Amino acid sequence: MNTEVYTNLEEETVKTLKWLGGFGSDPDGGVSRLLYSQEWVDAQESLAQLFKDEGLIVQKDEVGNLFGRLEGSTFKDETILTGSHVDTVKNGGLYDGQYGIVAGFIAIKYLKAKYGQPLRNIEVVSMAEEEGSRFPYTFWGSNNIVGKVEKDDVKDLRDFDGILFEEAMHQAGCDYKKNPGKIRDDLKAFIELHVEQGNVLETEGIPIGIVQHIAGQKRFTIEINGQANHAGTTPMGYRKDAMNAACRMIHEMNDLALSYGDPLVATVGKMILEPNTVNVVPGKAVFTVDIRHTRRSVLTKFSEEMTAKMRDIASSLGVGIDIDMWMDADPVPMDQKVVNIIKEQCIENKLNYKLMHSGAGHDAQNFAQVVPTAMIFVPSHNGISHNPDEYTEPRDLAEGVKALIGALYKLGYSKEGI
Amino acid sequence: MNTEVYTNLEEETVKTLKWLGGFGSDPDGGVSRLLYSQEWVDAQESLAQLFKDEGLIVQKDEVGNLFGRLEGSTFKDETILTGSHVDTVKNGGLYDGQYGIVAGFIAIKYLKAKYGQPLRNIEVVSMAEEEGSRFPYTFWGSNNIVGKVEKDDVKDLRDFDGILFEEAMHQAGCDYKKNPGKIRDDLKAFIELHVEQGNVLETEGIPIGIVQHIAGQKRFTIEINGQANHAGTTPMGYRKDAMNAACRMIHEMNDLALSYGDPLVATVGKMILEPNTVNVVPGKAVFTVDIRHTRRSVLTKFSEEMTAKMRDIASSLGVGIDIDMWMDADPVPMDQKVVNIIKEQCIENKLNYKLMHSGAGHDAQNFAQVVPTAMIFVPSHNGISHNPDEYTEPRDLAEGVKALIGALYKLGYSKEGI
Repeated sequence: MNTEVYTNLEEETVKTLKWLGGFGSDPDGGVSRLLYSQEWVDAQESLAQLFKDEGLIVQKDEVGNLFGRLEGSTFKDETILTGSHVDTVKNGGLYDGQYGIVAGFIAIKYLKAKYGQPLRNIEVVSMAEEEGSRFPYTFWGSNNIVGKVEKDDVKDLRDFDGILFEEAMHQAGCDYKKNPGKIRDDLKAFIELHVEQGNVLETEGIPIGIVQHIAGQKRFTIEINGQANHAGTTPMGYRKDAMNAACRMIHEMNDLALSYGDPLVATVGKMILEPNTVNVVPGKAVFTVDIRHTRRSVLTKFSEEMTAKMRDIASSLGVGIDIDMWMDADPVPMDQKVVNIIKEQCIENKLNYKLMHSGAGHDAQNFAQVVPTAMIFVPSHNGISHNPDEYTEPRDLAEGVKALIGALYKLGYSKEGI
Repeated sequence: MNTEVYTNLEEETVKTLKWLGGFGSDPDGGVSRLLYSQEWVDAQESLAQLFKDEGLIVQKDEVGNLFGRLEGSTFKDETILTGSHVDTVKNGGLYDGQYGIVAGFIAIKYLKAKYGQPLRNIEVVSMAEEEGSRFPYTFWGSNNIVGKVEKDDVKDLRDFDGILFEEAMHQAGCDYKKNPGKIRDDLKAFIELHVEQGNVLETEGIPIGIVQHIAGQKRFTIEINGQANHAGTTPMGYRKDAMNAACRMIHEMNDLALSYGDPLVATVGKMILEPNTVNVVPGKAVFTVDIRHTRRSVLTKFSEEMTAKMRDIASSLGVGIDIDMWMDADPVPMDQKVVNIIKEQCIENKLNYKLMHSGAGHDAQNFAQVVPTAMIFVPSHNGISHNPDEYTEPRDLAEGVKALIGALYKLGYSKEGI
């Protein structure tokens, strides 16, 4: 493989991202393309046309996942899949999700132009949904592909306007899958290219991250029950200050997280006080904790130490504590063979890369259950995501596409494949 | 003075409190009697009638402060005043404010029955307003009495229904004072009897508190500016977590307050996070600090140490900090002579008392600027106030009235007076 073919990668990637971002573009910047909205329908139909124009075979499954296939010459029942989700959060950016689709399409186009027909099928997928921004349900697209969906999961869900999931789905010309548990048996590998949504790559000045693990997550709601009292008339020694107790807990949790070191992260993102008034000692403090790590055993150990410390503090300050763990998702390792193929291609093509983990959840974690899967990251400027200010340098976008081209070439054009 | 006269004090106090609490009683319990509301008008008119029926001379000033006077025989230009405010917070209790009026009336009634006409005038006042619960202005009643009001302070204020202060005032048959700066020159002493609104007296099992100081207050709003980041993709070392910084500051502020000891109190009652979402590192945390102490020098020293610590923490964690002190009220000492008179009367009448301070603000702090002033507290069950659950044992209510009777007797019936 040589690099002449890359001449216009930056320009073409940016142009195609802007074109796709036009479906659902917000008046003041940003993109809102919620599942089964008119903008979503327009985007999928226009992508289908784009794929067709490039000579790809287009298929859409019942729920609205869109596939564009460059057919293989030899191993016709083997498919290498790439892509990401087409939906966005409300007022999101130009990169999250749609970069993986655009990059997959451009990679296939360049491979076809440069090397002609592959031995295996190479497909790009534009998945229906991942964000959970319209209905309280995430990963609708990939869950359907990997056969993890039941009607009951979504049939009573309504969006913020009261519209039923089914109603919206039918209006967009989609439906439940006829065989929801059935999984395609031609899939041999899946690679998702995505923006990092963090600031590690930018800070370290590296354009490509090869993901080895998607972190597991535990999420908690911690409720501290003290006693609301007058801020002027209640001596410090007579207080049961829920806020003071919460602050001590959060302080210690942060110290504990720092002592564990990377890749452990622990975040208190939300806090609600009652009565939340300047001159009343808070009687109640409710806060959330979000913990992530790539190893289940570490997640569990940290959680146990953290909750034990919190209970100790509550007990020593005479306040009540109620700890509710409402999310417990295991870490997902990526496939080491696919990771190695991407790595080798980066080395061969002189692309600067870093092996890393993903702290965020992605469609790839679903695929990893059924097919050898890996992810490639490109930098997110200032780590910003889910925001109109989301930005990745055109040069970095192109480096990501190059890494993907390399991996798809190896997987789709070589006899050994994976 | 003997104690036969006290036979029915408990019963009469409770009965009169319930009667007065009927003006503005809420359907599910509690009392809402906001300034210049119909309930407020009804209460003041009914109190005027009660005072008249007892043979007191009734006067109402322009703004609606109501006075009931038992005239003195000898020193006709000298008046001993007692009482409190008639307004309540929204859905308040049966004791805050109105206990001081009811107790003052009953004390005068008993003194008259037992000892006849005093040498000096003894007056009970039912003040128009103290809470600031209808309009964003507090101490309207006592500010008018001590000549601290200007029209401009209130003329543009509106309540939650958009009604102008003036409009509400006129509708209640009241108006601005004609001579707002003029202060009565007959006032020789003021005593306010009030519920403690804290839990010191109850905890120590003492029915009477004699207030020596009303604490000074400083109030701050502290804004911490970090950077909002994805909770999964931002390693701990790359964060500018406004919540973590705030918790460290609040933790240290509490430790500092404990090291100062009573009567210093420091409270973080209110906290607002942005974006306040479980999976986003908070980019902004805004919290309030309320600090109180009876000595200005200590208040200042604590504030300086606290803000220095906060700035250090902000700097070491790389977040911005903006500190705004928006209230700075000096401590107000009570008059030592009046305090001593109350103390001696407690000793003489075998009433168990404690010298203490008030952490809350009261009308007495205004009077203290112009006339020898003191306060008497009775216990608040669990320290609860501004709430339908506000409660003081009938026995304690009666002890408070007894202490007041003793002090008014000494001030009103003895030649030396004060």
